Amino acid sequence: MGKVELNNDAAILDIPETHNLIISTDTLNAGTHFIPNASPANIAHKALRTNISDIYAMGAKPYAYQLSLAFPERPTDQWFTEFTTALLKGQTQYSLFCSGGDTTSINGPLSISITIMGLAEKGTSYTRSGAQNGDNILLSGPVGDAYIGLQILQKKLTTKDDDYFINQYYKPEITPITSTHINAAIDISDGLIADLGHIATASNIQAKIQLKNIPLSPQAQKLNLPIESLLTGGDDYKLLLAASPNHTIEGTTIIGQFKTGTPTVQLHDKTGQIIPTKQTGWSHF
Amino acid sequence: MGKVELNNDAAILDIPETHNLIISTDTLNAGTHFIPNASPANIAHKALRTNISDIYAMGAKPYAYQLSLAFPERPTDQWFTEFTTALLKGQTQYSLFCSGGDTTSINGPLSISITIMGLAEKGTSYTRSGAQNGDNILLSGPVGDAYIGLQILQKKLTTKDDDYFINQYYKPEITPITSTHINAAIDISDGLIADLGHIATASNIQAKIQLKNIPLSPQAQKLNLPIESLLTGGDDYKLLLAASPNHTIEGTTIIGQFKTGTPTVQLHDKTGQIIPTKQTGWSHF
Repeated sequence: MGKVELNNDAAILDIPETHNLIISTDTLNAGTHFIPNASPANIAHKALRTNISDIYAMGAKPYAYQLSLAFPERPTDQWFTEFTTALLKGQTQYSLFCSGGDTTSINGPLSISITIMGLAEKGTSYTRSGAQNGDNILLSGPVGDAYIGLQILQKKLTTKDDDYFINQYYKPEITPITSTHINAAIDISDGLIADLGHIATASNIQAKIQLKNIPLSPQAQKLNLPIESLLTGGDDYKLLLAASPNHTIEGTTIIGQFKTGTPTVQLHDKTGQIIPTKQTGWSHF
Repeated sequence: MGKVELNNDAAILDIPETHNLIISTDTLNAGTHFIPNASPANIAHKALRTNISDIYAMGAKPYAYQLSLAFPERPTDQWFTEFTTALLKGQTQYSLFCSGGDTTSINGPLSISITIMGLAEKGTSYTRSGAQNGDNILLSGPVGDAYIGLQILQKKLTTKDDDYFINQYYKPEITPITSTHINAAIDISDGLIADLGHIATASNIQAKIQLKNIPLSPQAQKLNLPIESLLTGGDDYKLLLAASPNHTIEGTTIIGQFKTGTPTVQLHDKTGQIIPTKQTGWSHF
């Protein structure tokens, strides 16, 4: 603990027999996943949080991570200090440690790949494939703030709350939601509609959500932005869950229901009409 | 097994309580770690073998790996088929599976980062830090072939055995060496002298090796290349081990001894004279 190990010695880890190891990889490339002049602290926060979010989405606790850094040129000592200081803060906040990694040079942009490990008591973790007919669709926080933050960073938009939105883009608030009544989960990285589609496909079930129930932050409510952008912009890192309707899950808002049907997402306005959702989310190419 | 999973769902793994999880990360970037026009099969072979080599260097068995692929543009179906076919061959040959990963786009060269997991019975794995005074220095195979292969690929050299050397560069022969008498180990990725230096530093001990005992392949012996190049060129992926001198370790050649002293590497010629080794190995920047 308390160190960021970057040598490529292998680490020796002891996994308790009562737990499963949950493992996931998320890679962020400058110019694609963050703007090239992002501060080292913001890059570190985003890289770590996007990965921890994947562990929360499985109902697991963060344990350790492997960090691969590919640098176009040797970073300055200051850059490296700010980067590792932010990682150490994240390690303390989310109770995990850096178990190793690799540092390489690349004839291209900075690339950060994290493979994160989490622990879950055997039988308690979930995936995107367990949603049941009648399950509520739950959301762990407001969506769209990171999308607005990105628009601000790209100088396409300016608001009175620029700092708030930019902070949500780089340091999304991520919180674990645990309950034995959760049947499936995903974290919203590609956008609410796209990631709900991933649960629908994996669970072979239809997702119906009500526009009026989807939470926006007070800051986002003040802006008159097209709702579709907020629902399809990525980087929210809130949890989207399927859970039995007979129980309240603390920290979540009900935005719809899963119903037997073709695995699609239906967005309804307050009169019950289906709103077409052409743009389903962020595509990798 | 039998699949290359590239989605970024987290995987759920069961680690036997009798074993430790050994984890290591190796990243390869086109233009830095392999030439940009390398065949997809060769890239896959090299990426997987460099990682498995790290697991062997810990005395562990390969178990699973996470694969991060950053592509400058969407690869052709043919590229992807050849790449995954080679990975599947490697998975079968070395008994491991792909537990997940991430696919991203990058405004730069192809970047492949693998985080590999291995299993070792508790108490049986080793690191680079356990070499003892009097231990033999052992090598699991000839060095320099991959360096020669790279020179050929860079059109700086041509030989009668070009195919052999290029094959050793992309598909190094890697074999596990296991014995309870091994005290420390490393795989030679940065070059024999540099990696022996890593054991010396980590174990705080001096390494003395005899030039005449260092094995070269029959193909390399035919060439009249400066020996220093062969000992400092990287990419060999042979194992360099420290082991008790009272036991034979199958599959290895004794090339020297560890002695109490300043943690350096001393290379001796056949008369016992110290040969200066200026260039210690491959540097990342």
